[in-house]
Amino acid sequence: MNLLAVDTAGKTAAVALMAQDRLLYEAQLNNGLTHSETLLPMIDTALRCAGLGMEQLDLLAVTNGPGSFTGLRIGLSVVKGLAQPRQLPCVGVSTLAALAYGCTGEGTVIGALDARRGQVYWAAFDLASHARLTDDAAEPVEKLEKFIKTCKKPLLFVGDGATLCYNRYGQEPGVAPCPPALGILRGAGVALAAKAQWEREGAVSPAQLLPDYHRLSQAERERAAREEQVQRGNGNHGI
Amino acid sequence: MNLLAVDTAGKTAAVALMAQDRLLYEAQLNNGLTHSETLLPMIDTALRCAGLGMEQLDLLAVTNGPGSFTGLRIGLSVVKGLAQPRQLPCVGVSTLAALAYGCTGEGTVIGALDARRGQVYWAAFDLASHARLTDDAAEPVEKLEKFIKTCKKPLLFVGDGATLCYNRYGQEPGVAPCPPALGILRGAGVALAAKAQWEREGAVSPAQLLPDYHRLSQAERERAAREEQVQRGNGNHGI
Repeated sequence: MNLLAVDTAGKTAAVALMAQDRLLYEAQLNNGLTHSETLLPMIDTALRCAGLGMEQLDLLAVTNGPGSFTGLRIGLSVVKGLAQPRQLPCVGVSTLAALAYGCTGEGTVIGALDARRGQVYWAAFDLASHARLTDDAAEPVEKLEKFIKTCKKPLLFVGDGATLCYNRYGQEPGVAPCPPALGILRGAGVALAAKAQWEREGAVSPAQLLPDYHRLSQAERERAAREEQVQRGNGNHGI
Repeated sequence: MNLLAVDTAGKTAAVALMAQDRLLYEAQLNNGLTHSETLLPMIDTALRCAGLGMEQLDLLAVTNGPGSFTGLRIGLSVVKGLAQPRQLPCVGVSTLAALAYGCTGEGTVIGALDARRGQVYWAAFDLASHARLTDDAAEPVEKLEKFIKTCKKPLLFVGDGATLCYNRYGQEPGVAPCPPALGILRGAGVALAAKAQWEREGAVSPAQLLPDYHRLSQAERERAAREEQVQRGNGNHGI
């Protein structure tokens, strides 16, 4: 089973190719360019390096959220496009699960993405088994306190929201450090998370592969606020 | 400070580019091809992806042993060649330290390479600080027992000798699992190990960069055995 896994949910991009349990190739890129410029060349390089053609792939995986709305759309569009001709089975994995599956040891790992406005997208996983401990959530950093006080230690934060978490909880007992270079999302993490999910739940068709934004976009939030204001205005008008 | 780090000590090849503490690019390749075919294209891809030219590099790093004799020579030759024109400072890092620096958490990590004939090259490091706990050694797997019984847990094995170690010690209390895909040597590990060593000890010139094979090659072992036999023959002759 040859699996191609990609991630463009955050600032970094990642690609991996895995055959069964063997990682053939993995690359992470953090060059500040838009993912729409970098992702297809990265996939091309991965296939050439591993000596595989698209016709030898059996499963495509992509992080489908949470993350940057534009980033998620780039990753999903590319994977849908590559899967379409042969209707290859696809797996959309949680960005936070992919972060956790890139780490190992014993204890707890929290995948955290910067959700702006003082919030993080976060979820916790067992570090050894990668079993999910909490659902993906978007919350202010201070809301993690209860979980952090009681979870199994050592505790590790990874992802582009890790710095926010370390700033607040880095001195708590049992919180282990993570150098920024090791906290980025690995292609191997996407591949391992996707393989586990595929074994558990199976795959979907390219058309069924959808983003999971976890909250409304800024445009949608603004429209909802405008509509609420109009409704309130109408209500006042009626009084 | 822009750092290029490469590894060809084992079956996999790895490349990373790091600017200060920021990982710009990292790739690991495990395609069965010889490193002499893959390493230069991998470095070329890394530089192009990160938008850097050779003239923007400040420090070159390479794993200089233990490992495959041919693999080490390929990595060292390429790095010496790239460093020569501008006499770039170089750092040769222990392959086992590079393995350890690619992991994080709390507890102990043992970098292990298959040294054939039932032996592993191994060394132990603190997982959080990456402080070295034992010297690089080539020993039979059963010799690790004393250290493993008494070291800080959880304990993780990484590297292409990890399977040998897990087969023998995987059931010991406090030994944490490591999926094979996460146990390969990361470019980021070489880069982080090299940066720490550079800060501690400085760099060397390209000419001073040397392999550290840790034991004689098969040809040298055979010559030594022949010479011993001849000497013993001469001795017998004298009796």
